[in-house]
Amino acid sequence: MSYWNERRTIRKFTPQEVGEDVLDKMLAEASHAPTTGGMQLYSVVVTRKKEILEALYPAHFNQPASTGAPVLLTFCADFNRFTKWCEQRDAQPAYGNFQSFVAAMLDTVIFAQQFVTIAEQNGFGTCYLGTTTYNAPMISEVLHLPRLTVPVITVALGYPADEGAVSDRLSVDAFRHKDVYEDPTQTDIDGFYAEKEALDENKMFVRENAKETLAQVFTDVRYPRANNEHFSNVFLSYLKEQGFLQ
Amino acid sequence: MSYWNERRTIRKFTPQEVGEDVLDKMLAEASHAPTTGGMQLYSVVVTRKKEILEALYPAHFNQPASTGAPVLLTFCADFNRFTKWCEQRDAQPAYGNFQSFVAAMLDTVIFAQQFVTIAEQNGFGTCYLGTTTYNAPMISEVLHLPRLTVPVITVALGYPADEGAVSDRLSVDAFRHKDVYEDPTQTDIDGFYAEKEALDENKMFVRENAKETLAQVFTDVRYPRANNEHFSNVFLSYLKEQGFLQ
Repeated sequence: MSYWNERRTIRKFTPQEVGEDVLDKMLAEASHAPTTGGMQLYSVVVTRKKEILEALYPAHFNQPASTGAPVLLTFCADFNRFTKWCEQRDAQPAYGNFQSFVAAMLDTVIFAQQFVTIAEQNGFGTCYLGTTTYNAPMISEVLHLPRLTVPVITVALGYPADEGAVSDRLSVDAFRHKDVYEDPTQTDIDGFYAEKEALDENKMFVRENAKETLAQVFTDVRYPRANNEHFSNVFLSYLKEQGFLQ
Repeated sequence: MSYWNERRTIRKFTPQEVGEDVLDKMLAEASHAPTTGGMQLYSVVVTRKKEILEALYPAHFNQPASTGAPVLLTFCADFNRFTKWCEQRDAQPAYGNFQSFVAAMLDTVIFAQQFVTIAEQNGFGTCYLGTTTYNAPMISEVLHLPRLTVPVITVALGYPADEGAVSDRLSVDAFRHKDVYEDPTQTDIDGFYAEKEALDENKMFVRENAKETLAQVFTDVRYPRANNEHFSNVFLSYLKEQGFLQ
């Protein structure tokens, strides 16, 4: 088994601090990841101060991975720095639009994932908090984010307090298409998800939530319509406030 | 120097094919990257067939990296597969909204970057084509993408025909903020960009484009207002067509 097949998310951390130097070294390494036109359209806010961490927790719905980590890294799509540079150099930047947000989001996520891989390979534990775009306005206020910056993903970082577990994954046939997209048939879908549905932990998950199928746990409990729609409206309004949507 | 500081994008490839087995193995490894709620909200279309490649080139503005690679991998945010599964399992999916697109885009980019790192470490050359969201409708048609799928990034893959070059990067102080976002002052900005502006290749770039500053090359030539705004409208309309925006 290679590192890649064995990697695991860590949700429990020891109280040990993460040194500033090692963190900066890893961030510098991660910055060599590909980036749109060499622009590096991202920032990362490294939060260690207790009162600021505590203000961030509710934005992440107090997930244990967030409240237990000594550091939270909020990765932000950032056209603020680049725009300021343009303005100081007699250039006329026009990055207050959706395509510019998309480019910055791509850069930010590529950078974040490069960082996560480097941190894992250095023995740190990491956990992405996917709640960042749900509560972007709250995070933005706590972290003083200016116009043309948007938090897109957060990483909880620390020394692992447990081993984590390798998560189940679909087989390549489920997500790799040859030449063009082959829309899966009903039989394909049954095949793709059979292994996941047969896992004991997933069966338990269905029982605990008093549902009939694993899919219902996703649609009714984890990612239900009302939440998806509510937080979509919140995020779209926020993109407007931050200057990326008209 | 670690691999991370030395990594380089490759834009020229030998004609040698990339084997299906090694590619599938790397895709399977990459699929262990973190993913929202274990949902793996992505697909990758691996295109090798000459006529389909040729139909994709104009969507990437015939960039040499696209036309010279034996394989193009189009990474797509994908809620189609998951939604079909839900429908077959008596569940009521509600993923036709913006927040679901954002989750799928995060998953897709994390997966793509994990793949790029794995491919590089296996001796392959890769180049991201950031043109994917500009011409998403054209790509979508060529690749037969169904509703609730959106192409977000493309990777040109092959065996390197040159060594590439390590790109310059901003120092960590430019993009790492402590506890909260510290909006850069005019002096900060001057300092952050000084090294980049002093590079011979960037000075040549300014002269070749008959501009006064490097920033003007970005605002007037590479990422000008008219393009950004036009392709923003195109992509927003496309997101509506694909079902992710009302």
